Amino acid sequence: MSAIETFDNPHPERDYTIQHEVEEFTSVCPVTGHPDFAEMSIVYGPAAKCVELKSLKLYLQGYRNEGIFYEDVTNKILGDLVAACGPDWLELETRWSTRGGIHSIINVSYTKDDNEE
Amino acid sequence: MSAIETFDNPHPERDYTIQHEVEEFTSVCPVTGHPDFAEMSIVYGPAAKCVELKSLKLYLQGYRNEGIFYEDVTNKILGDLVAACGPDWLELETRWSTRGGIHSIINVSYTKDDNEE
Amino acid sequence: MSAIETFDNPHPERDYTIQHEVEEFTSVCPVTGHPDFAEMSIVYGPAAKCVELKSLKLYLQGYRNEGIFYEDVTNKILGDLVAACGPDWLELETRWSTRGGIHSIINVSYTKDDNEE
Amino acid sequence: MSAIETFDNPHPERDYTIQHEVEEFTSVCPVTGHPDFAEMSIVYGPAAKCVELKSLKLYLQGYRNEGIFYEDVTNKILGDLVAACGPDWLELETRWSTRGGIHSIINVSYTKDDNEE
Amino acid sequence: MSAIETFDNPHPERDYTIQHEVEEFTSVCPVTGHPDFAEMSIVYGPAAKCVELKSLKLYLQGYRNEGIFYEDVTNKILGDLVAACGPDWLELETRWSTRGGIHSIINVSYTKDDNEE
Amino acid sequence: MSAIETFDNPHPERDYTIQHEVEEFTSVCPVTGHPDFAEMSIVYGPAAKCVELKSLKLYLQGYRNEGIFYEDVTNKILGDLVAACGPDWLELETRWSTRGGIHSIINVSYTKDDNEE
Amino acid sequence: MSAIETFDNPHPERDYTIQHEVEEFTSVCPVTGHPDFAEMSIVYGPAAKCVELKSLKLYLQGYRNEGIFYEDVTNKILGDLVAACGPDWLELETRWSTRGGIHSIINVSYTKDDNEE
Amino acid sequence: MSAIETFDNPHPERDYTIQHEVEEFTSVCPVTGHPDFAEMSIVYGPAAKCVELKSLKLYLQGYRNEGIFYEDVTNKILGDLVAACGPDWLELETRWSTRGGIHSIINVSYTKDDNEE
Amino acid sequence: MSAIETFDNPHPERDYTIQHEVEEFTSVCPVTGHPDFAEMSIVYGPAAKCVELKSLKLYLQGYRNEGIFYEDVTNKILGDLVAACGPDWLELETRWSTRGGIHSIINVSYTKDDNEE
Amino acid sequence: MSAIETFDNPHPERDYTIQHEVEEFTSVCPVTGHPDFAEMSIVYGPAAKCVELKSLKLYLQGYRNEGIFYEDVTNKILGDLVAACGPDWLELETRWSTRGGIHSIINVSYTKDDNEE
Repeated sequence: MSAIETFDNPHPERDYTIQHEVEEFTSVCPVTGHPDFAEMSIVYGPAAKCVELKSLKLYLQGYRNEGIFYEDVTNKILGDLVAACGPDWLELETRWSTRGGIHSIINVSYTKDDNEE
Repeated sequence: MSAIETFDNPHPERDYTIQHEVEEFTSVCPVTGHPDFAEMSIVYGPAAKCVELKSLKLYLQGYRNEGIFYEDVTNKILGDLVAACGPDWLELETRWSTRGGIHSIINVSYTKDDNEE
Repeated sequence: MSAIETFDNPHPERDYTIQHEVEEFTSVCPVTGHPDFAEMSIVYGPAAKCVELKSLKLYLQGYRNEGIFYEDVTNKILGDLVAACGPDWLELETRWSTRGGIHSIINVSYTKDDNEE
Repeated sequence: MSAIETFDNPHPERDYTIQHEVEEFTSVCPVTGHPDFAEMSIVYGPAAKCVELKSLKLYLQGYRNEGIFYEDVTNKILGDLVAACGPDWLELETRWSTRGGIHSIINVSYTKDDNEE
Repeated sequence: MSAIETFDNPHPERDYTIQHEVEEFTSVCPVTGHPDFAEMSIVYGPAAKCVELKSLKLYLQGYRNEGIFYEDVTNKILGDLVAACGPDWLELETRWSTRGGIHSIINVSYTKDDNEE
Repeated sequence: MSAIETFDNPHPERDYTIQHEVEEFTSVCPVTGHPDFAEMSIVYGPAAKCVELKSLKLYLQGYRNEGIFYEDVTNKILGDLVAACGPDWLELETRWSTRGGIHSIINVSYTKDDNEE
Repeated sequence: MSAIETFDNPHPERDYTIQHEVEEFTSVCPVTGHPDFAEMSIVYGPAAKCVELKSLKLYLQGYRNEGIFYEDVTNKILGDLVAACGPDWLELETRWSTRGGIHSIINVSYTKDDNEE
Repeated sequence: MSAIETFDNPHPERDYTIQHEVEEFTSVCPVTGHPDFAEMSIVYGPAAKCVELKSLKLYLQGYRNEGIFYEDVTNKILGDLVAACGPDWLELETRWSTRGGIHSIINVSYTKDDNEE
Repeated sequence: MSAIETFDNPHPERDYTIQHEVEEFTSVCPVTGHPDFAEMSIVYGPAAKCVELKSLKLYLQGYRNEGIFYEDVTNKILGDLVAACGPDWLELETRWSTRGGIHSIINVSYTKDDNEE
Repeated sequence: MSAIETFDNPHPERDYTIQHEVEEFTSVCPVTGHPDFAEMSIVYGPAAKCVELKSLKLYLQGYRNEGIFYEDVTNKILGDLVAACGPDWLELETRWSTRGGIHSIINVSYTKDDNEE
């Protein structure tokens, strides 16, 4: 994957929220080899750094030909975002296209107090 | 019913949420013998195991020719899902097609602290 | 009005919720004699008994030619449902068609702890 | 049924169109005795007379307790409207609430050239 | 009513279409004295002149306290617009708020070939 | 399949249109054995006979466990309807649930002049 | 303004909620003299008295030619409603048509414990 | 304005249609100096040349600070597009944000047979 | 690209229409190398052969990493479909995700009388 | 930027909420020089002063040709609004048009207890 770049939070004196709605995510099912499609919501409270949008786009494009499960890719992107920008908190949701009449949604969140990463 | 299979939670170190929206559930009314149709939401917090999607689809197809009441099938599926994957919590909602001008919705939830199952 | 019938709750061991969305309720305005139309939501937590759907439909049809105010009929149906099935709690909402550019909604709820009925 | 009244077309020198969307029609199924509900569109090109709205409302309320089939009531109302206001043309559509998973729509039209009525 | 003003069509060499969707029309019912509300579509093919928007707004506000029937006001406004800007053709539709469960729509059109006005 | 029953057209003196929107059709894929789901529109101009709704519902339920392709079942139902009620014309559309990211729609029509059936 | 009339609450033994959605409010901008249009939500918990709908309609029509600001009229109507029916609580929201690309919403609430009015 | 660039139609052997929905057009009102906002549909049948998208975006951005009337800018853009790519036909629609409760739509079309430009 | 497979039209005695709505098409922009996303409608009148759905899905997946322009890929897929199944007629529409505030739609059709391919 | 003007809160004796939905905000990307478009929600609890709408419109138009980042402009406008009207609390949300398949939303809030500004 290409790196997620950041820039300095222009208003670190405030608590505020940044949300990026990704409308065009795609990866590959590791079992069948068929493509999967998802919408993704990234919402976070910035600390010292903000996620740079162009690098985020390129990072996410890196999954285009990766075989990876829904649950795994959702957690992996959360981990990479947290490592890149060290937010106060971050929530990630992936909403996947219908397969076999079932439409799946994965939701994971991080807060700094958890002491993880 | 065919068995609900599971796979190991790839990220047991996090609290996260998995949601499966089932768009094509059908069973049979035990009184009239006519088919019933429902949408179903399954939402859970995985512990050691996740529900495998293909087996879930086949398990749910097993109700296609079963005569069973709304309230009963909703509770029965909740019980089978909890037994299969032992989640931290699980919520199940069934939304049934209109009959006689009335559209019914059944909602049941489980949390591990309840000590049931 | 015809009686609201009940059946034994098939899963009294769980707390769960039953919702009936009534799409075709009609009664008569006691002042003008013109028909009124409403959608109605009935949501309850069953205790020993569940409301039987066919008898509910017939009971509600009994208001078709009754002259009765919005506020009164909403409270009266709540009372009859509580008396019939003795739920842990029950909420009733009626949403009435526009009259004179005003669209009215009445909302009433019961919980067993209130010791009413 | 109460009579459909009319008033003189205030602009007979123009061809124009009048449409009434009836949002609250109800009658009774002649087989089961249960109520039926429909939305109704009345569209016509007025000649010498226009349909008076209040009398139309009262006329349509007259079907509230009548047992009559979808196809029959739709044709009957068309006939009564044409007889009352003698339009250049008239179209009538009834859209009925879902019964047994089937939602029915009946469509009938009249034009003066047909020499009927 | 205040006058509908016009300006010279900036592109008389082309056939084109101008549409004004009026979202806030109101007049008064001449029978009951209660206010009526409507949305209005004005669509025309300009000839030498275009309708000036601000004067159109003021002209339409002039009906705010006028008692006038749906069919009459619709034809009257069409006449005034045609007289003011002499278009190749003009269509006018008024869509009125629900009264007694009935929502009415009036539609009238003019074309120069009709030789009227 | 159970038989499609008919009743005498109550208004054979008029050309009119009957439309039945079937919201709950299901059959089985002959290749995979998995269930298919569809919405179906039946629109026809009645001649001497109209399709009876309850028998239509039972006839369509007869496909619940039949393995049959989209194109085939759509044409077969059209043929059976035409044979049962001998309409002036009939159109049938089936809209199938998404499979592999593709949502299919089949459309077939009959008119008496075709001399088929 | 004409008076807001009331009737005795038919079920003072229960806590319940009455909501009136006013779809056709209009007043006048005190600066420009142009009409303003709004939708209004009135929601309250009745005590001894309920607001009578017809008088409410007439009271609100009284603002049709009044020049008054958004913030002022919203608070004034709240005050008049509270004075008329003495509710346990009351919430009022006005949602105004777009002016200069800006759509405004005013929200005010009263509860008896506040000891105001 | 920056130039509209073109590229060779890759399939001149077919009649086909290209549509560009512009979601973010803005210019300035020549009377008030306030900004105007519009959505724009460009639909055309390409002949030898197709419109290049990036240059179209830059060309349209050139109107950002131009004072120009709705009718004028719509016709001017049509003229520039036709001059740039010489299509078989081209349709242009601009849909403008509400001003004073009126939402305007301008529609103009060109076909080669007209011999204009 | 993998081959588009076909099967024998089960009802060649009728004129009917088959429509496949492809919800998940993606290719690559040949200039920037970034992915493009589209929805695609394929509608055709079958002659001797029908398009097999699974092979269609695999064929379309073959564009996932191809750099190709909107206009080119739309025409190319039309050509391949016509070559594979020899339909009476076929229409293809691609609707592309927004780029730079512009959302593009390409529409191409084939009929046997054109004598092309 | 032109100044945000205020007027005296006409009802300082009540806690209430004022919301302005700005439908037409635009600024410029400081990196690419291309225009950005956003919808903006301003919600606040007024203290002594209310924001005057016309000056708000002119103030926001001042960003039309400013190069400024999403995060920065959102925080800057919040600061200017708080400085102008000294509210009890204020929330500001900007929702930006899609760029590169990503739609961003920035959310910031102020409350007087924070002692900032």
